[in-house]
Amino acid sequence: MGDDFERMWADLAPIGRSATSGGYYRQPFLGAETELRAWFVEQAHARDLEVETDGVGNVVAWWNPVGVDGEAPGVLTGSHLDSVLDGGAYDGPLGVVSAFAALDLLRSRGVAPQRRIGVSVFAEEEGSRFGLACLGSRLASGALSWAAAQELRDRDGVFLTDALASVGLAGPAGPAGLAGTDAGSVLDLSGVGTFVELHVEQGRDLVERGAAIGVASGIWPHGRYRFDFAGEANHAGTTRMEDRADPMLTYAMTALAANKQARLSAARATFGRIEVAPNGTNAVPSRVTAWMDARCASDGELSDLVAAVTRQGTERAGRDGTSLAVTAESVSASVAFDAALAVAIAADHAAGDWPVIPTQAGHDAGILSAAGIPTAMLFVRNPTGISHSPAESATVPDCLVGVSALADTLERLAR
Amino acid sequence: MGDDFERMWADLAPIGRSATSGGYYRQPFLGAETELRAWFVEQAHARDLEVETDGVGNVVAWWNPVGVDGEAPGVLTGSHLDSVLDGGAYDGPLGVVSAFAALDLLRSRGVAPQRRIGVSVFAEEEGSRFGLACLGSRLASGALSWAAAQELRDRDGVFLTDALASVGLAGPAGPAGLAGTDAGSVLDLSGVGTFVELHVEQGRDLVERGAAIGVASGIWPHGRYRFDFAGEANHAGTTRMEDRADPMLTYAMTALAANKQARLSAARATFGRIEVAPNGTNAVPSRVTAWMDARCASDGELSDLVAAVTRQGTERAGRDGTSLAVTAESVSASVAFDAALAVAIAADHAAGDWPVIPTQAGHDAGILSAAGIPTAMLFVRNPTGISHSPAESATVPDCLVGVSALADTLERLAR
Repeated sequence: MGDDFERMWADLAPIGRSATSGGYYRQPFLGAETELRAWFVEQAHARDLEVETDGVGNVVAWWNPVGVDGEAPGVLTGSHLDSVLDGGAYDGPLGVVSAFAALDLLRSRGVAPQRRIGVSVFAEEEGSRFGLACLGSRLASGALSWAAAQELRDRDGVFLTDALASVGLAGPAGPAGLAGTDAGSVLDLSGVGTFVELHVEQGRDLVERGAAIGVASGIWPHGRYRFDFAGEANHAGTTRMEDRADPMLTYAMTALAANKQARLSAARATFGRIEVAPNGTNAVPSRVTAWMDARCASDGELSDLVAAVTRQGTERAGRDGTSLAVTAESVSASVAFDAALAVAIAADHAAGDWPVIPTQAGHDAGILSAAGIPTAMLFVRNPTGISHSPAESATVPDCLVGVSALADTLERLAR
Repeated sequence: MGDDFERMWADLAPIGRSATSGGYYRQPFLGAETELRAWFVEQAHARDLEVETDGVGNVVAWWNPVGVDGEAPGVLTGSHLDSVLDGGAYDGPLGVVSAFAALDLLRSRGVAPQRRIGVSVFAEEEGSRFGLACLGSRLASGALSWAAAQELRDRDGVFLTDALASVGLAGPAGPAGLAGTDAGSVLDLSGVGTFVELHVEQGRDLVERGAAIGVASGIWPHGRYRFDFAGEANHAGTTRMEDRADPMLTYAMTALAANKQARLSAARATFGRIEVAPNGTNAVPSRVTAWMDARCASDGELSDLVAAVTRQGTERAGRDGTSLAVTAESVSASVAFDAALAVAIAADHAAGDWPVIPTQAGHDAGILSAAGIPTAMLFVRNPTGISHSPAESATVPDCLVGVSALADTLERLAR
């Protein structure tokens, strides 16, 4: 099992890696991510799995052993292969590689599942290119309409449809995909009875608890909010400070207020992306656009947090002679995973219970759970506690415990 | 005179103009700016002026009337044709158009100058592409070496030499320019006895004084300082606020500190340009790079301002777990223009003295003055007081007073 896992891991290591930072750039429908999906199809074929693709970049490799009831709801496991900009190696690929390794383990154990088991990859999970996280699973589950998706553009103004077309994908209504039965449509989840996603942990919880594996109880509600600060462009030298309407100042105060507000309420708020116009050294900006990522333990707390930051930003805008408009670009309500399933997984461990913990990160598992599919998540300890960064990590022994836990879970679910 | 001025102004109006903002994008060695230089050469030829170009994009149109002493130091007047990103119509072009109009006026008056008079355009005055203001005049005056200039790159990583080559310019040592005697070298300023630059005012001083024209006493010392804030990339959801090293917070506090410091010391400090890595909505940034434009009444005050902002940013970095490194990318010492010349121009006005005022903006005139060439500047009133913005303005009557004042000045200097 370990050899197989490490071989797959070594396959993936160089794909989309920055020679400078060591981080990964695996934006959807571009070179590195396309290479990863080709690798996925190869792995599926090497295992005699049946590959099902769709027109938006989702792909599943199905194990249908002889004697399986084709009508019974299947078990899906997997994650994603895209990354944030300069991301880590584990976020996404660990779940995919572990799913293949878990299948190999089940086969080596001589397990005869009564349901088919699929290894899945959902497209654009990070939303790093088109701004909307979990794009593939949202389309597959119906949480996002194709009409709305067609409006999406990347930072360079490229429409989603054109990005898909550039790698031979035709959208939900198109005629052709990589291979398989539903190539030109969107993945049909109606035959999926359970979804299990294994993922590297993205914080320090497991490190502090001394546990290699955790089981997710649910996902915090979270959202992306665009803050448009408008002011008046002017000369940086000749314009007296008191004559300015500088939106950068309003932004700066708002970013500090968001941080303070999140600390006060044990929540999370981050301004990690900003665009400035004209972005010239010797010009007071006319416009600053910045995105706030906010996450809280409850839906009500999330609304309160966004309202509090908006109020403080607006007050400052009044003093700066600028204006602030806040737009919610995507908001995901809280998700509670299947509680009985989580407890069963957590207890299925000789050395004592694994912790059942919430996560503040969005995942395809959250989208499928919200669509009514019983869902579970397994987390593998991350020694650095760092994610969305080249410093993201997991040890091979912990990963192999994860593979084994995933195999046990699949075996139970496929009975 | 008015017709001629307005015809030239109408020629320039559409070139490089944004249909969205109405502002101008005239970055050096790209389409719009190349078109403007071609227009300049046309205007020169239409007036039988002798065109001198060099290999870095500077160009002069010389009026050498019969009987002029070719050995006597010449009189140069002009400005620049490039703009900041989304800049105004007047900053630069007003000085060039007014110079041609002033020559026309001298000819219509039948003036017979004893010295040659040149209309000049210096390249990349704004530094909006290669980050160093007054690039052309710095190279011509020797304030910048070609070896140092060859290291310059634009935001896309394009080297200055490649940008020059893309429009047929070969740098100082190259063989060919648009036309003229010194095409492959750098403009030789040794034969220039005086430089006069007419410019739109970039603040409200003349509006408040009720004067159409002002004469510059000097330029405040000013500089561009790169602030590199380094932290640790991480997941925006799962990373607890107290576990972060977020350079965006250090930046935000530093930007507010710079503003406060400038207000306290009646100086100017602006953060108008910022670059964030990885600049993703759901990632705590690893790095924020921002540029401070700072200007003060004296060299000592400028040093004190930069030191104070650096100190406050560094203290905050200590609290944020980030680091701050400050690099002076370009610093221009204070410039005092030729006082006798300024007084003579200011008094040369039937309706009363024009005010002699300092400016906080850098200009090619400052570079030439620092190189020992007696220099003067005329400012034309700007009703909005706004510059480096589409809202920059000047009335035609004020512009024509400016042309007349410039013609009078040239007539005196060319005696």
